[in-house]
Amino acid sequence: MDMLWSGWGDPTRATPLPDTVIGLLRDMLGVKPRSAEPVTLEEIPVPDSPLAPAVREALRGAVGSAEHVRTDAESRVRHTRGKSTPDLLRIREGDVTDTPAAVVLPGSHDEVAAVLGVCAEHGVAVVPFGGGTSVVGGLAPASRGAFVALDLRRMDGLLDLDPVSRTATLQPGLRAPHAEALLAEQGFTLGHFPQSYEWATIGGFAAARSSGQASAGYGRFDEMVLGLTLATPSGTLEVGRAPRSAAGPDLRQLVLGSEGAFGVITSVTVRIRPVPETRIYEGWRFDSFEAGSAALRRLAQDGPRPTVLRLSDETETLIGLARPDAIGSSDPQGAGCQAIVGYEGTPQDTAHRRESAAAVLRACGGTFAGSEPGEHWAAGRYSAPYLRDSLLDAGAFAETLETAAFWSRLPELYASVRQALTGTLTEAGTPPLVMCHISHVYENGASLYFTVVSAQGEDPVAHWEPAKHAANEAILAAGGTISHHHGVGTDHGDWYVREAGPLGVEALKAVKRSLDPAGLVNPGVLLPVD
Amino acid sequence: MDMLWSGWGDPTRATPLPDTVIGLLRDMLGVKPRSAEPVTLEEIPVPDSPLAPAVREALRGAVGSAEHVRTDAESRVRHTRGKSTPDLLRIREGDVTDTPAAVVLPGSHDEVAAVLGVCAEHGVAVVPFGGGTSVVGGLAPASRGAFVALDLRRMDGLLDLDPVSRTATLQPGLRAPHAEALLAEQGFTLGHFPQSYEWATIGGFAAARSSGQASAGYGRFDEMVLGLTLATPSGTLEVGRAPRSAAGPDLRQLVLGSEGAFGVITSVTVRIRPVPETRIYEGWRFDSFEAGSAALRRLAQDGPRPTVLRLSDETETLIGLARPDAIGSSDPQGAGCQAIVGYEGTPQDTAHRRESAAAVLRACGGTFAGSEPGEHWAAGRYSAPYLRDSLLDAGAFAETLETAAFWSRLPELYASVRQALTGTLTEAGTPPLVMCHISHVYENGASLYFTVVSAQGEDPVAHWEPAKHAANEAILAAGGTISHHHGVGTDHGDWYVREAGPLGVEALKAVKRSLDPAGLVNPGVLLPVD
Repeated sequence: MDMLWSGWGDPTRATPLPDTVIGLLRDMLGVKPRSAEPVTLEEIPVPDSPLAPAVREALRGAVGSAEHVRTDAESRVRHTRGKSTPDLLRIREGDVTDTPAAVVLPGSHDEVAAVLGVCAEHGVAVVPFGGGTSVVGGLAPASRGAFVALDLRRMDGLLDLDPVSRTATLQPGLRAPHAEALLAEQGFTLGHFPQSYEWATIGGFAAARSSGQASAGYGRFDEMVLGLTLATPSGTLEVGRAPRSAAGPDLRQLVLGSEGAFGVITSVTVRIRPVPETRIYEGWRFDSFEAGSAALRRLAQDGPRPTVLRLSDETETLIGLARPDAIGSSDPQGAGCQAIVGYEGTPQDTAHRRESAAAVLRACGGTFAGSEPGEHWAAGRYSAPYLRDSLLDAGAFAETLETAAFWSRLPELYASVRQALTGTLTEAGTPPLVMCHISHVYENGASLYFTVVSAQGEDPVAHWEPAKHAANEAILAAGGTISHHHGVGTDHGDWYVREAGPLGVEALKAVKRSLDPAGLVNPGVLLPVD
Repeated sequence: MDMLWSGWGDPTRATPLPDTVIGLLRDMLGVKPRSAEPVTLEEIPVPDSPLAPAVREALRGAVGSAEHVRTDAESRVRHTRGKSTPDLLRIREGDVTDTPAAVVLPGSHDEVAAVLGVCAEHGVAVVPFGGGTSVVGGLAPASRGAFVALDLRRMDGLLDLDPVSRTATLQPGLRAPHAEALLAEQGFTLGHFPQSYEWATIGGFAAARSSGQASAGYGRFDEMVLGLTLATPSGTLEVGRAPRSAAGPDLRQLVLGSEGAFGVITSVTVRIRPVPETRIYEGWRFDSFEAGSAALRRLAQDGPRPTVLRLSDETETLIGLARPDAIGSSDPQGAGCQAIVGYEGTPQDTAHRRESAAAVLRACGGTFAGSEPGEHWAAGRYSAPYLRDSLLDAGAFAETLETAAFWSRLPELYASVRQALTGTLTEAGTPPLVMCHISHVYENGASLYFTVVSAQGEDPVAHWEPAKHAANEAILAAGGTISHHHGVGTDHGDWYVREAGPLGVEALKAVKRSLDPAGLVNPGVLLPVD
């Protein structure tokens, strides 16, 4: 099934907001129904593909068949940008300025290499395309010349599974649920469940340093990766000969997070674990975000480590009660902040960790809220992007952004990003709701994930820009990283070069020049075009 | 105190082998007493420093004082090469072909940068020098021109400790025991205890991707590092803004393992943990290396994870009984393989892990051997290099090498490296004892650490070379990495370029060109000189 071209996911799962919520949006935030209907896919004026016939022919040769080189309007619209809110707003307006000249579907590493060869010969840029779920402009190259979207969906196999070493080698175009199904046939799981789980791909996880909702237990995706194959315009790079090594810098960590700017990931070897026999998700309540954060920190630092560990701030906890599918389902008396704590593993292991963690959470002021909030969270864990579509349909603006920092910097980071978003949007006449949660914890710090909902401005994309800008400035000023798990793309480029510093950027540009001398893979993504 | 110039560690701790062991060496391996006495430090014919007076003067300016630019013979001998067995054999012969032109002792990041500036101006190579414990030729640059040893011992401070985030920022010249003492004052430990612990430095750990004996519990050094400052000829690179990030490739992992070839590490921010209240080290016995390996794998994959986890093969277990300080101290009936299993942490946590791990070890065929082997191991954990000195003194040859691989490759790797060492040295007329242990385990694989003892050949350095060559070939052929924790240096360069592959090497060379355009920092270490 194809993803909804103008929004998220399975079109049949879209659910309009109930009237009560629309009323709340109107009364609280001044959200007004949209005046115009969005365009339909058929209405979008996609210009003819600028690809020269000779290039098209050469690409067909590279992938072995005409059906794998697509230049029809629908294919190209469906590969236009990603799934950030500005992306959705623009495609809903029929803006196809970032549309690829063609969509090419290679079936193997060698075909990827052949496509790169053709593109290098003809000076055509290449944008790797997995699930198309980037929310940071990772699919919109900076150069406005013709480019090819390299859709990896045909490369969706499990190449190898080593049950002794507990490793699996996966192709990049495998969507996460399909990867999990293939692993489950042999009793294993990857344990990577980001919000984009249902649509995102293995290659995308690696390219963007994804982190899933069970990262407390399974680690980040970049911690799961043991080996990678990268097809570059200069040839093939294979990295990861042993789980750990002192043979030079860890080149895996140079490919992870490279966002297609060094080449195309054509296989990923990952750590796998037995499918857990037991899964428990529960709710806890804290009087404040500060108290809850301290409890999460204690578990992250001294253990026992739950598999899932999340904490909503006061606003997100409060609004959670008003979510369309949640009204009345949470404890209405529960003020403060809600945490979700999950355990996956063997019955003995989960029982032991659950008991010990409960003692810690209680000692930190937590109150057990039963399994209902946990089950509710688990049931809806992939549905937030559908809710965003409904909010946009209802005329509201909704977007998310995220960062991470060391624990001691977290309170200031939290306060200043909230202030930046609230101040900017209030000044612009659309006072927002700003919600936040911690969803990834480490011994030395944690992530902060913000959700912003407000009325749309006259030009919603332009209206959001100063707020996003102010949030990014606040993140850098308060010691945060410009992205904990969404990536850099083109949207975060200006802040990324400040975070990496001139020498860091120069080193990465040097790597890019050596692997992609003509600058043809994902130009302007991650690294600025000179 | 200065390290023994011709061997390891504290000269007062040297202990000659008992006659019984000398007899065993003679009868088992044909070791003969050395015919000549080694040279004394004073006898070594160190040529005058080739450093031009203007350069010397400029270096004095960079570090603020004449006493921090040393060109005397003793200082230069003490900074000649590292502590591999060939290094020791050569310096004992008075071979000073790799002697630096001067030893420069900067006191700060800015002074390091100033030294790099002077050296760039005058085209003088710079070799960073921490504890001087490299065993892979990391201190002997390939270019035979004059070079400066940059000794970081004056930079030995704790710059910052954040008890909330549990991070500490350390200077590179801090030796590990001093670092532990500074952290312990505030209740923390780094938990990094490699065999070189008593002499090696924080900067060296980072540069060479060190791994300590408690890596099962505390992780490798490269997993502890959260931030780094690198002084390069092109300027300063600062990396590590958050514990984890999706903002591009992890540049920390590019600096870690760079072995001075990109610049000089001038500060390291590490994860710290509370000093453990409890430390328990115990012995276990297995019928075979295979059975013991399976037990280690089960703990590494399914837990609980001990803090220390080591397993000696049959030969190492057997020879352990004959070690000079160990005769009669281990269970004389215990055949098979000995494992050391350690737990550090709170009393509750260690008790729980110990009980659960014991059940796993028993289920895997292990027999509990009591605390004596564990205590014995802990007492002697840093003494093996002293034993090597005694073996060399007695006319024997002794060297170690190490690798790592995925679990499923480990049996073949073990067999083929043993075979390579045994075959080569037997053919050369000096049949060796080859011992091996696993001392670092991961979910997906483990390290193998080999110790070789034999008679010395006529020219011991040249005699060893084919055996080392054969072992390296066996490692690559069997899917191992050329180093798990010793590093690449100059000794492993030829195999490293094959392991990293042409594109991997090209990418790293590109980084080096951007950070060190003139190729002056550690030329030929890690990366070949063009």
